[in-house]
Amino acid sequence: MKLSIRKDALNEAISHVSKAISSRTAIPILSGIKLDAASTGLTLTASDTDISIQSFISLSKGEQTLITLDKEGSVVLPAKFFVEIVKKLPSEYVELEVFDQFRTLIRSGSAEIELVGLDPEEYPILPRLEEDKMFTINGQVLKAMIRQTVFSVSNNESTPILTGVLWNLNEGRLKFVATDRHRLASTEADIDTAADLKLEHLVIAGKTLNELSKIVADDVMVDIVATDNQILFKMDAIMLYSRILDGTYPDTSKIISQSYKTELVVQTDRLTDAIDRAYLLSREEKTNIVKLVTIDSGTIEISSSSSELGKVTEQLEVKRLDGDDLKISFNSKYMLDALKVIDSDHIHIGFTGMMSPIIIRPEEDQSMLHLILPYRTTT
Amino acid sequence: MKLSIRKDALNEAISHVSKAISSRTAIPILSGIKLDAASTGLTLTASDTDISIQSFISLSKGEQTLITLDKEGSVVLPAKFFVEIVKKLPSEYVELEVFDQFRTLIRSGSAEIELVGLDPEEYPILPRLEEDKMFTINGQVLKAMIRQTVFSVSNNESTPILTGVLWNLNEGRLKFVATDRHRLASTEADIDTAADLKLEHLVIAGKTLNELSKIVADDVMVDIVATDNQILFKMDAIMLYSRILDGTYPDTSKIISQSYKTELVVQTDRLTDAIDRAYLLSREEKTNIVKLVTIDSGTIEISSSSSELGKVTEQLEVKRLDGDDLKISFNSKYMLDALKVIDSDHIHIGFTGMMSPIIIRPEEDQSMLHLILPYRTTT
Repeated sequence: MKLSIRKDALNEAISHVSKAISSRTAIPILSGIKLDAASTGLTLTASDTDISIQSFISLSKGEQTLITLDKEGSVVLPAKFFVEIVKKLPSEYVELEVFDQFRTLIRSGSAEIELVGLDPEEYPILPRLEEDKMFTINGQVLKAMIRQTVFSVSNNESTPILTGVLWNLNEGRLKFVATDRHRLASTEADIDTAADLKLEHLVIAGKTLNELSKIVADDVMVDIVATDNQILFKMDAIMLYSRILDGTYPDTSKIISQSYKTELVVQTDRLTDAIDRAYLLSREEKTNIVKLVTIDSGTIEISSSSSELGKVTEQLEVKRLDGDDLKISFNSKYMLDALKVIDSDHIHIGFTGMMSPIIIRPEEDQSMLHLILPYRTTT
Repeated sequence: MKLSIRKDALNEAISHVSKAISSRTAIPILSGIKLDAASTGLTLTASDTDISIQSFISLSKGEQTLITLDKEGSVVLPAKFFVEIVKKLPSEYVELEVFDQFRTLIRSGSAEIELVGLDPEEYPILPRLEEDKMFTINGQVLKAMIRQTVFSVSNNESTPILTGVLWNLNEGRLKFVATDRHRLASTEADIDTAADLKLEHLVIAGKTLNELSKIVADDVMVDIVATDNQILFKMDAIMLYSRILDGTYPDTSKIISQSYKTELVVQTDRLTDAIDRAYLLSREEKTNIVKLVTIDSGTIEISSSSSELGKVTEQLEVKRLDGDDLKISFNSKYMLDALKVIDSDHIHIGFTGMMSPIIIRPEEDQSMLHLILPYRTTT
């Protein structure tokens, strides 16, 4: 392999694939980035076995030459050092040349770096996925759906299936659900796909979706190919492969009540700020417990207390308050997480009693829902 | 105590004093901020026993009323929560009122916070310093002198005296020295003071100077009052007290050679970049060893190597190279730390042999000096 490449193009590709590099890997070759130079361009690959990312740099972009290729070939270079040194090379161009035993020379301006490369034949081959289950989604929509759900996945590795987001595609409607057993987030959107394409029980790790979010640009279309155990996200020059989580996702449809005993509509930012202040105090107690009490037909009170520090109390006017009087306690951190991803001016909160799930939705949008289990408290 | 105060003025004062709050204090009352409301304004005090900071808010600033005072008085409020909640209060104004047993009510807009306050009588009294040893220094000059030296103090608490910067004032010349036994930084400047004011053996903790740097504005004059065991920095509305470190600072004057066997002058940014690239590789070996070798009368070579990864080599043209040929190894992190605080276009490096201190100075400025001990290496 021998080529000269624009440093900025190489850096951009590195920044994409490096999201799949794990600092602790049991498989030595995976601590490297694989470079494949072919007649069409240079492909970079990185993988931590759960996620694999490929980024392709073509020989030219419009009028601009990105790569001058002298000799095709492949090599695996030590990822951590390669990522850092390329950023700091002095010239706009980088020469890469592979010698015997994958010894690789990097030249840029006056700097000359000799790297101990590894055999690309030892690098795992990425799966070839059958493209019969494929659909396309707008990058901005995909990122919004991830943002609205992924924070609710479980961090507890003892129930691996809950560390993922459940995807469901039926009659052109894509739905995401995430829950850690204390809260749940769900969102859905219409997408442009063949009406008979149906996906069920597809659970994708929250970690994969977080990395995907960082890579997807707003203005691209993402092709998604699903098989039984792998999913592939294809964007312009980037491909992200991830395995699908094993196991059965719990049926959450029954815990979401359709009728409420108490309903309230309130300005999102004012509620967020009031709960944030109460949260600050409850956090000192390490409970995060905040209380919501109805005062009269137009007012609620948000409060928290700490035996050592004191208490925070705040009354809020609501736009609408219907149904029974209510006194309820909940984890304010969970409530803030949900409120933060709701962009609507007003939110609707539905209660079916002190011990039943709290349902939070944007006021005029049924496609998104957040659920929080209340706390059992004595006061 | 009862008053109403502008939130931004209160926040600014809190941000200054909060730098003296330690998260782990053995003295419970020091986990609080003391508030003293008097006829002239409100004083905030925080202390971790090593450093104490006071910030004063006057009743008005120009045309603007900052404080409406109803009743004088004092209270100590829990620092961590008070700092955070004031930032998040909804209104531009904050009412503070102290009741029985230092119970304190904070009101702002619709938010009402009741805090368990502590008795201000239990708060340590700050020392009153005799002002017979006092001088004044420009804020920008003081911050530059701190920046040029403080990174070289020792982090090793087993030699406490080396965790500080040695101050020396003689005939209107102020000099700072810092060393951790592996490197040394010194800088000096003329200041406008009584010619007979002399300060010696004044060692101030690096931590104090770092906090001071954050507080001092560029355009203020700082009055400095020194006694045998305390130093006070007075700025507009802020006072920072610190204790002076006990012990005898080592005499470093003899290790700085005045004549060199090899001297070189090189462009600062090009040398910095070359060493930075070599450092990246040497860091992987956890040694940080970088080698500098003279090639011919106009060229040096910077290099590092790692048995696992490979090597980095770079030749640099120098502006001037006099004296003996040289091959020397040093800690590149120390070299980069020194190069980073030298703002001059070119630097002068003096060597007196493979095992003697390396002396780094700006090319045309004798007031600043950095010294690094070389490494003994076999190659």
